[in-house]
Amino acid sequence: MRQQSFRTMPPAHPFDDDKLKEECGVFGVIGLADAANFVALGLHALQHRGQEAGGIVSYDPVTGFQSARRFGYVRDNFTKASLMETLPGSLAIGHVRYSTAGSKGQTAIRDVQPFFGEFSMGGAAIAHNGNITNAEALRRELIEHGSIFQSSSDSECIIHLMARSFQKTIPERMKDALRRVEGAFSVVAMTRTKLIGVRDPLGVRPLVLGRIGDGWVLSSETCALDIIGAEFVREVAPGEMVLISPEKGVESFHPFERRASRFCIFEHVYFSRPDSILGGRSVYETRRQIGIELAREAPVEADLVCPVPDSGTPAAIGFSHESGIPYGMGIIRNQYMGRTFIEPTEQIRNMGVRLKLNVNRALIAGKRIILVDDSVVRGTTSRKIREMILDAGAAEVHFRIASPPTAWPCFYGVDTPQRDKLLASHMSEDEMRDYLGVDSLKFISLDGLYRAVGEVEGRNNRCPQYCDACFSGEYPVAPSDMIQKGFQTKAAE
Amino acid sequence: MRQQSFRTMPPAHPFDDDKLKEECGVFGVIGLADAANFVALGLHALQHRGQEAGGIVSYDPVTGFQSARRFGYVRDNFTKASLMETLPGSLAIGHVRYSTAGSKGQTAIRDVQPFFGEFSMGGAAIAHNGNITNAEALRRELIEHGSIFQSSSDSECIIHLMARSFQKTIPERMKDALRRVEGAFSVVAMTRTKLIGVRDPLGVRPLVLGRIGDGWVLSSETCALDIIGAEFVREVAPGEMVLISPEKGVESFHPFERRASRFCIFEHVYFSRPDSILGGRSVYETRRQIGIELAREAPVEADLVCPVPDSGTPAAIGFSHESGIPYGMGIIRNQYMGRTFIEPTEQIRNMGVRLKLNVNRALIAGKRIILVDDSVVRGTTSRKIREMILDAGAAEVHFRIASPPTAWPCFYGVDTPQRDKLLASHMSEDEMRDYLGVDSLKFISLDGLYRAVGEVEGRNNRCPQYCDACFSGEYPVAPSDMIQKGFQTKAAE
Amino acid sequence: MRQQSFRTMPPAHPFDDDKLKEECGVFGVIGLADAANFVALGLHALQHRGQEAGGIVSYDPVTGFQSARRFGYVRDNFTKASLMETLPGSLAIGHVRYSTAGSKGQTAIRDVQPFFGEFSMGGAAIAHNGNITNAEALRRELIEHGSIFQSSSDSECIIHLMARSFQKTIPERMKDALRRVEGAFSVVAMTRTKLIGVRDPLGVRPLVLGRIGDGWVLSSETCALDIIGAEFVREVAPGEMVLISPEKGVESFHPFERRASRFCIFEHVYFSRPDSILGGRSVYETRRQIGIELAREAPVEADLVCPVPDSGTPAAIGFSHESGIPYGMGIIRNQYMGRTFIEPTEQIRNMGVRLKLNVNRALIAGKRIILVDDSVVRGTTSRKIREMILDAGAAEVHFRIASPPTAWPCFYGVDTPQRDKLLASHMSEDEMRDYLGVDSLKFISLDGLYRAVGEVEGRNNRCPQYCDACFSGEYPVAPSDMIQKGFQTKAAE
Amino acid sequence: MRQQSFRTMPPAHPFDDDKLKEECGVFGVIGLADAANFVALGLHALQHRGQEAGGIVSYDPVTGFQSARRFGYVRDNFTKASLMETLPGSLAIGHVRYSTAGSKGQTAIRDVQPFFGEFSMGGAAIAHNGNITNAEALRRELIEHGSIFQSSSDSECIIHLMARSFQKTIPERMKDALRRVEGAFSVVAMTRTKLIGVRDPLGVRPLVLGRIGDGWVLSSETCALDIIGAEFVREVAPGEMVLISPEKGVESFHPFERRASRFCIFEHVYFSRPDSILGGRSVYETRRQIGIELAREAPVEADLVCPVPDSGTPAAIGFSHESGIPYGMGIIRNQYMGRTFIEPTEQIRNMGVRLKLNVNRALIAGKRIILVDDSVVRGTTSRKIREMILDAGAAEVHFRIASPPTAWPCFYGVDTPQRDKLLASHMSEDEMRDYLGVDSLKFISLDGLYRAVGEVEGRNNRCPQYCDACFSGEYPVAPSDMIQKGFQTKAAE
Repeated sequence: MRQQSFRTMPPAHPFDDDKLKEECGVFGVIGLADAANFVALGLHALQHRGQEAGGIVSYDPVTGFQSARRFGYVRDNFTKASLMETLPGSLAIGHVRYSTAGSKGQTAIRDVQPFFGEFSMGGAAIAHNGNITNAEALRRELIEHGSIFQSSSDSECIIHLMARSFQKTIPERMKDALRRVEGAFSVVAMTRTKLIGVRDPLGVRPLVLGRIGDGWVLSSETCALDIIGAEFVREVAPGEMVLISPEKGVESFHPFERRASRFCIFEHVYFSRPDSILGGRSVYETRRQIGIELAREAPVEADLVCPVPDSGTPAAIGFSHESGIPYGMGIIRNQYMGRTFIEPTEQIRNMGVRLKLNVNRALIAGKRIILVDDSVVRGTTSRKIREMILDAGAAEVHFRIASPPTAWPCFYGVDTPQRDKLLASHMSEDEMRDYLGVDSLKFISLDGLYRAVGEVEGRNNRCPQYCDACFSGEYPVAPSDMIQKGFQTKAAE
Repeated sequence: MRQQSFRTMPPAHPFDDDKLKEECGVFGVIGLADAANFVALGLHALQHRGQEAGGIVSYDPVTGFQSARRFGYVRDNFTKASLMETLPGSLAIGHVRYSTAGSKGQTAIRDVQPFFGEFSMGGAAIAHNGNITNAEALRRELIEHGSIFQSSSDSECIIHLMARSFQKTIPERMKDALRRVEGAFSVVAMTRTKLIGVRDPLGVRPLVLGRIGDGWVLSSETCALDIIGAEFVREVAPGEMVLISPEKGVESFHPFERRASRFCIFEHVYFSRPDSILGGRSVYETRRQIGIELAREAPVEADLVCPVPDSGTPAAIGFSHESGIPYGMGIIRNQYMGRTFIEPTEQIRNMGVRLKLNVNRALIAGKRIILVDDSVVRGTTSRKIREMILDAGAAEVHFRIASPPTAWPCFYGVDTPQRDKLLASHMSEDEMRDYLGVDSLKFISLDGLYRAVGEVEGRNNRCPQYCDACFSGEYPVAPSDMIQKGFQTKAAE
Repeated sequence: MRQQSFRTMPPAHPFDDDKLKEECGVFGVIGLADAANFVALGLHALQHRGQEAGGIVSYDPVTGFQSARRFGYVRDNFTKASLMETLPGSLAIGHVRYSTAGSKGQTAIRDVQPFFGEFSMGGAAIAHNGNITNAEALRRELIEHGSIFQSSSDSECIIHLMARSFQKTIPERMKDALRRVEGAFSVVAMTRTKLIGVRDPLGVRPLVLGRIGDGWVLSSETCALDIIGAEFVREVAPGEMVLISPEKGVESFHPFERRASRFCIFEHVYFSRPDSILGGRSVYETRRQIGIELAREAPVEADLVCPVPDSGTPAAIGFSHESGIPYGMGIIRNQYMGRTFIEPTEQIRNMGVRLKLNVNRALIAGKRIILVDDSVVRGTTSRKIREMILDAGAAEVHFRIASPPTAWPCFYGVDTPQRDKLLASHMSEDEMRDYLGVDSLKFISLDGLYRAVGEVEGRNNRCPQYCDACFSGEYPVAPSDMIQKGFQTKAAE
Repeated sequence: MRQQSFRTMPPAHPFDDDKLKEECGVFGVIGLADAANFVALGLHALQHRGQEAGGIVSYDPVTGFQSARRFGYVRDNFTKASLMETLPGSLAIGHVRYSTAGSKGQTAIRDVQPFFGEFSMGGAAIAHNGNITNAEALRRELIEHGSIFQSSSDSECIIHLMARSFQKTIPERMKDALRRVEGAFSVVAMTRTKLIGVRDPLGVRPLVLGRIGDGWVLSSETCALDIIGAEFVREVAPGEMVLISPEKGVESFHPFERRASRFCIFEHVYFSRPDSILGGRSVYETRRQIGIELAREAPVEADLVCPVPDSGTPAAIGFSHESGIPYGMGIIRNQYMGRTFIEPTEQIRNMGVRLKLNVNRALIAGKRIILVDDSVVRGTTSRKIREMILDAGAAEVHFRIASPPTAWPCFYGVDTPQRDKLLASHMSEDEMRDYLGVDSLKFISLDGLYRAVGEVEGRNNRCPQYCDACFSGEYPVAPSDMIQKGFQTKAAE
């Protein structure tokens, strides 16, 4: 009875629901005593990449492989001495994930990574950021040959492919497995003696290498190096596999055919933390630069530039710097908003929006407001914010969006709605402006975005420097499972 | 064994530990179905006033008084249908509190308000924001006469004084009781038929009245009216008692001798939310104005103005506006930092600082930085931030503090360290600058602060418009329990 | 919603529901290191006297009074090192209680004893077995004079009466308080230096004194002395108060007017454990003797004597010994039946009976069975057992009951149904036999029961040796609260 | 820290530790709405076969396969509506298990059955009672071929063997798999449409078929049919596989070579519940008959026959019937003893024995006592009981044991100590008597035991009618994994 009512409830977070969501963060450490503690800190710093659940596997010669997987924040689980004591050893990897609503039931803890497999030459654990676009075909094939899957995760294919490889070592088996896999993947894995990192040939998802004392670190982002005081060494290169051990240090391999890289441009716009460095560029500075580009491309006379907190803040600062229009906090975010505010009654549910944001009425009233947001997905949130701003007495509302229109779903490890739910898939910029009911609406151009990330010539249309499929519909890897299910790519349309 | 290790641990939040902490928020609703749901939302909006625990009491003619008290955030407890169903009725009050470290043990749930008492004419529940400065003397007297205390809270005195009053009605008994009480109090209480609000004669703590449909609301701050869509009516006046019922509306009484009000000026500086309105003034705007005053009083040549997030942000924006120096996010706050990050090992404990904040290195490196913070308490945090900023390669670090030096403890409902722990109690501004190791350190002047809150003439030293005891040492109500324990007021020094 | 369904559910234990229930057990220790651990063991041995909740208060000069109260079994709560470490000291008392269905909600933990009060001369904790028959009148009076009750327990009156006494010491205040109290009480209490035991003038509930090493013990029953290896010293006498300290040993006082004692005869029949000694008599042996008396009073030709497990077992053994009819286990009890089997569906709920008991078909089939049970309350269980036995193919079913017909409710600390729910209140023995549908039904006579407890002359009707109000309707203390509510005693009928 | 102290603690249950333990019970239902509810009841009745954990898998066409696995008693988990609602459908199977101390950690929930596998033709779940004696060899082989094990359970082999079979249907694959398996197994399994039961060719473990309404039931014992009101149909025959569906009813197959059956004789002595019927014989009656045989084989003059509760009770009754010596409850068992009494201090730990049993001193003192127990394993418990009895003043203590000396470990699904820990492996009866310190000690003879189970000629030594390896050392299936590890069978000695 009670469960039913949960299911029929509207999403708990009206706002979060209208964002694209990175699905994972990965982190690994070798060569440091109590490695799992460092992994916990690293995952805490990567929590924005996945808030639903986390897992850590550690290895110690005495206790063997140990694992713990939990729903909820890292800080609420992997900080208890009683739990951390069960994860001894100087080698550990971890994973945070976002899981789609509803699967967080009884058995879904099985879907929480890292995954572990016992092979004849010993065990291995693996954590995966990205998405395997041919996972369903692989799974069917593996089941036909006698593999038994324990989760509904696409990532589990990798461990079964490794189990069936005829190679003699785990790294070689991993190469075998990953060569069969299509899509985007940044993998952190471990055997009893080695920490392993791999990025797919296009390098869609980030993965960086750090050093701390005698130990080595792999992380999705540099901000997680900072939290443990590790030094940034370099990015793992697209298509590279690194094997790391205290004895031999970092050994580099290139098991895949070389291709031009296509890093996800949306990591710059929204997914990564502003204090991370991606491809040698400060994410904060890139976002401020997007604001500057936006102010140049789409200027407007107004009294105040306000961010939609918190993700719109750096671009709003940039917009203010470039335009000279004062910057102010027109919308205040409730710091105590968590993932799980369940509205108890119909009456209150309709107030949902105010649980997270409140308008700073005194600042807004009577002014012409420029609102800077990172993206428009379904448009539901933007409409509500416009309403709140006008209720508070704003004279005009101008939206400036720090990314081009999101018109295509992502199949490389980001949770996006189906194509027809994306506002930009069926509306022009003017139609969206009217739908949102604002005085003006402007998105940064794709070229403007490329300039903001440092490509002074803008986008190279013959050979784009980034994966921008969510804006352009040009998928660098054909999403074969989805195509089989009837998805029409741009070319097919 | 394990408990011991908790006790010997350094505070979990190195930063929070160096703030003054408001100890409570109160909220009450009458005349709305499912009043407890509204109270839960109101308390969620007041969570910044007390994060350790919360409680709600509701009244329904069928079930009588019902109560629930919980440790942890409102959103994690008072949002579950199974709990909220136990709190029926159209009349409810609630309380959030901060409890001092260590008392959050087995029995301390008893200390969580609202308190409830059964009198011969029926029951009453009471929630209290503030501090009773003669509570210990009252408690001794009450125990001698046979009262049995259930908590260690000073607020419980009120309910025992009410129980012993000879008055025939609960409001009259409350007047009797509060006339015996010294100190600061904003009280929200309820009988079976009435919602009651009272402020002490000086009006040290805030309390506002709102209206929503046919219902009435009492709240510590206006931001909690916004979350439920209630309209702000007016502040409860210093020394006023309001009795609210659906039938008679708001009845106003003045049970105390009239005195000039002394509202807490630190509510403007730090405690209240920036989107609240205090005394007709936007808190955000006041803080921005403090930044402007600071820029005038203590200008410095620099490249970037950065807030210490999040409380320093509006003043930093004001400083930037006035000085023309660009505003930027030099320090990034981890959004997933909760109250309960327990560092598992010595090794990691020393990294404590980075759990909450990270420096945006790319922005800071090589620049002269102005850091705007709301206050300096012990100075421990300020030292760590300076260290982080210099590690990241800043050329110069200039601190600008949005309040005068905090040299005296507060006894009116704020958690402050003992006087000798307050840096400003034994150091001059120059000594503090050297201690913190920064290139310059400037506090706003007391007059500057008064100007920022709208007193164009500054502070009226003969008859100060606000309670500023934490800065001036001038206590508007003698803290008699503390004096008995040997505390020396400024006059006594 | 879900709560509702609990409320409308039939009782979880169809069998237990048809028993009278002792409401409490008390235990205290002084002069032994880690006294709370001994109290936990003692309460475990007294668990049959109260299964819903338990509490322990300890005192240590460093930590002061510490308390823990929990729902559930002693073994599930008071055995965890993490909890027991919070209860240091060489002086501790504890309590187990049965709470009526439905009150086990959010706030009812308040009703779990021991109760604690802070007086001007120090604190005291008190645990009470029994029932105060003028509690409601006392409560009204106390509230009128300003006492604030925290629980709905009648026992809380004692602590408020003590708080209001003008005596200078806690034991003197306790005498003052208990002289105002009517009803049955065996009290174990503690100050900072003394363990205190008191029994009401009639000595209705048991209380024994034991010794272990240099320490002293008070306990409801001797079986709880055995578990900690303590030696039985003597019973606390009816109307006696003992003050125990390591220095002075046991000091004895008689604060009440002396009266002839009236110990509860049902303690012999059912409440106490068979391995306890009551009034110098083995409970097991008394019950076996009841079986012998029954076999003499109500013989019947049959093939097998079966107990209704487990409480009917000793009487069944006695019946077999006397009659020569073989003893057998015709009904098997499921050892894993707990308190909380909640039947999930209508369909299954109707099978409720089989959750706890199963018939040993092979033994029963074709035989004439004598079933020996301890009592008949509502008769619901007896009907079901008869049905199970006949379904299994028994040729005849003869009930023999080890107590006289239970026709009157108990007001001295036993949970009994209202009078009209007691089968014997409105049916003769023959009517009950027909209602239960058995071939014969015989209760032991009141005189037979008195003989079994050693009164060779049977009951002294002018001055009965025991309290047997549940059988005779002769209440040794007038139940004044109940009379005020309209209860008609036998005399009044 | 705390965990360490758990590990170094002596076993929580001094008594239980000295019993052989059945490792599993299985139960399945098809053709009844809310089948999982019936399975929960069945598992509750089978709880004595495994107390550590339980699991249920159900299938419903809408929700597919659903599963829940929990540590703890059935009544504490599988009775909550919120959990049972997640297990819809008219087809379900379940399992209770005993798990060895220490493995009940974070990940061991993986070891809780039923196991589930997704095959290309659909899923299947399987629950297993018994032990696979070549499981380690099979596991090695399967891992070498790419299977990934998720548990440390021997039973998981079956599901991997099924996954790798080339057969087209799940039942055929199960036959394939079970033909590779050596040892003892009673399996209950399910596909989307069928309930499946299989017993190994020797029929070592029990499995019975029942009928209720239109539905069918499989269960380890008949007592679990009784609890849901199902009718006993017949035993599944040794070596038989039954496929059950509502449409076709019960289809019978014999996939294995036929052999003479060897049912476990210890099921009669101890494992099964006294109210179950095994091989057409009442377990209670068999045990009573053992007592009669014992009284004939090893008579002794004495005053009282006492069982060691509860398992010795029927044999004690039989001994009393045959010898004419009165039966009495000399030892009283604490009904509230659970699995998890953790003794908090050294001091108290030494009292461990009294937590579970107490001597009925008044009955024992001065008497010559015959104690009837089911078995002697390590002898530790027997020594403690002798001590308690003598402390209580018994004049003589005579042990009579309802099974022959347990001299060999079981490898067919029973938890036994290593051979050298078994008292009877290295002591004669006389040596054991002296070691236990009793006046006499007699075990029933192997022939006497066979007579008690109805073999009037006693044991057929050339072709024993039962598996009695624990007494005789004659293993009907060579324990190949153990032999590989160096175990010496009797023949090899």
